[in-house]
Amino acid sequence: MSNHRILLDHGSGGRQSSNLIAEMMLPAFDNPILAGMEDGAVFEMGGSRFAFSTDTYVVDPIFFPGGSIGDLAVNGTVNDIAMCGAEPQYISAGLIIEEGFAMADLRAVLADMGRAAKNAGVQVVTGDTKVVSRGAADKIFINTSGIGLIGPGIHISAANARPGDQILLSGSIADHGVTILSKRSGFSFDAPISSDSAPLNRMVAQMLRACPDVHVLRDPTRGGVGTTLNEIASSSGTGIRIYEDRIPVKQSVSGLCELLGLDPLYVANEGKLLAFVDSRHAGAVLSAMRADPYGTDAVIIGEVVADHPGRVVMETGIGGRRIVDMLSGEQLPRIC
Amino acid sequence: MSNHRILLDHGSGGRQSSNLIAEMMLPAFDNPILAGMEDGAVFEMGGSRFAFSTDTYVVDPIFFPGGSIGDLAVNGTVNDIAMCGAEPQYISAGLIIEEGFAMADLRAVLADMGRAAKNAGVQVVTGDTKVVSRGAADKIFINTSGIGLIGPGIHISAANARPGDQILLSGSIADHGVTILSKRSGFSFDAPISSDSAPLNRMVAQMLRACPDVHVLRDPTRGGVGTTLNEIASSSGTGIRIYEDRIPVKQSVSGLCELLGLDPLYVANEGKLLAFVDSRHAGAVLSAMRADPYGTDAVIIGEVVADHPGRVVMETGIGGRRIVDMLSGEQLPRIC
Repeated sequence: MSNHRILLDHGSGGRQSSNLIAEMMLPAFDNPILAGMEDGAVFEMGGSRFAFSTDTYVVDPIFFPGGSIGDLAVNGTVNDIAMCGAEPQYISAGLIIEEGFAMADLRAVLADMGRAAKNAGVQVVTGDTKVVSRGAADKIFINTSGIGLIGPGIHISAANARPGDQILLSGSIADHGVTILSKRSGFSFDAPISSDSAPLNRMVAQMLRACPDVHVLRDPTRGGVGTTLNEIASSSGTGIRIYEDRIPVKQSVSGLCELLGLDPLYVANEGKLLAFVDSRHAGAVLSAMRADPYGTDAVIIGEVVADHPGRVVMETGIGGRRIVDMLSGEQLPRIC
Repeated sequence: MSNHRILLDHGSGGRQSSNLIAEMMLPAFDNPILAGMEDGAVFEMGGSRFAFSTDTYVVDPIFFPGGSIGDLAVNGTVNDIAMCGAEPQYISAGLIIEEGFAMADLRAVLADMGRAAKNAGVQVVTGDTKVVSRGAADKIFINTSGIGLIGPGIHISAANARPGDQILLSGSIADHGVTILSKRSGFSFDAPISSDSAPLNRMVAQMLRACPDVHVLRDPTRGGVGTTLNEIASSSGTGIRIYEDRIPVKQSVSGLCELLGLDPLYVANEGKLLAFVDSRHAGAVLSAMRADPYGTDAVIIGEVVADHPGRVVMETGIGGRRIVDMLSGEQLPRIC
């Protein structure tokens, strides 16, 4: 690593994050489960298979249209576990609170966490609270970790993408990131925008019921759809082709992105997933997605190809082709 | 809760922490596992029993004699799982790093985590890194969560203390807290003091082999031995009697405590445990503790009585009696 200090980019979820993990985390913790680099760890214990995942939330502002750091923290970990093909069941909550934080805000954040847990059907069973002096943290940071059971016959991994797979996306992209940014910059617009923060575990359960042989599941959070597809192309050694005009972006969101110079492909989502499924099963899985309240706008956005292994190529609306690289540089800090 | 803002006291591990949990966390997350208020959550999944625990580390300074935030973060969660009678196996790491943090320090912290994991026999299998801008966090905060399997016949709980139980302590108290404070205040002493940060899972495994019917296990971290004993007295509805002259405190540590006006009974430990065992088995369990490198100085410091339920009473060195209350107010912020 050429630089000597941690930069905001190292937390972007893009290329610098990926380098940090590869060069510093993997060697320090050297084990094959971590090296899999999935959304969660998958292992066997006591004769069953589990997914275990952790995520820390530092979003700023902590309250925003469509959610708060509280429900984001629960939904995020619920989704990471679901993306391993597991049914999330138990969650932990580790809070770092800045001295002077308003008790009423804490109460609101905890209430959001409680509601989100109930909504997702998980229980927050263990926790920890640290308080640091004024200025040593910004308001509140929340870590959630969680565990879920993986049913027999389910083997989800970014490495499992295969040429011929259809790529399914559960709905419109970039809602969360654009909402946070517009709230932070104090912009006010006529068109209502709000975070898509949502639990995806019930949708995943229905998708796996429709087809246990789903190859890949990922929620495109930090780094967006563009970065996530690159991770999958890289893990599986396949090529990915997507079609720009099939990717749903709300008009208000797309307008804001243009205004702010953001590419929606790299903006964070908090209630969307990507699924890679053999074309024979794509219809059944798509139907299962559309039957879920968080997947009504699900679409097929592309396919896996044998060409250009490790690369993501997008056919643009005007008939051209563009290489979609990983996010390089921090588009939006403290987005989750 | 009478005050409207979060105070440092709310993170002390003492009375204010306890009120915060009872008044805000338990109602928000309303479930019987959390309500047990043990060091970790215990539940059944896929036919086996597990312990699941989380802890966030915000210690300042991050490097200190005897350890760093890195090994503290691993040992702390390993110990919380072990205190549920489980064998810790898998750990997560959630990092919050301040922009500008030295890459060399991160490397050192990760190396300490890796070594600590190896030493404890656990694997760090999943992680997350967030970077916040300068001034939004102080250097680095680490959350670890972890999971372990509980063997058949093991039922450890603070509620299980019974009159007649002997109270075993694995070694000298207050080393960690006093080390952090002295490092932070820049004091320099002739007598070497260092943190007791250590994994206790192997000791616990040997203790449970000697006697599967250990009633209570707790590591007296924030709030110290005094607060932990109060929690046990309160959970079990029993009285606790301890003897001041049996509680080991290193001379250097005791001298520093006197100088700084600290009561060692309330100072944090990071490599010590308290065990409550029926008197018939106390000898065997004590032998198992002493056979472990982290328990060579283990002693019996008191017993559970039917008198004064919910209260901890200490017979002092000069023949008097003193009520040992919970820690009230933050003795030492950011101690772990």
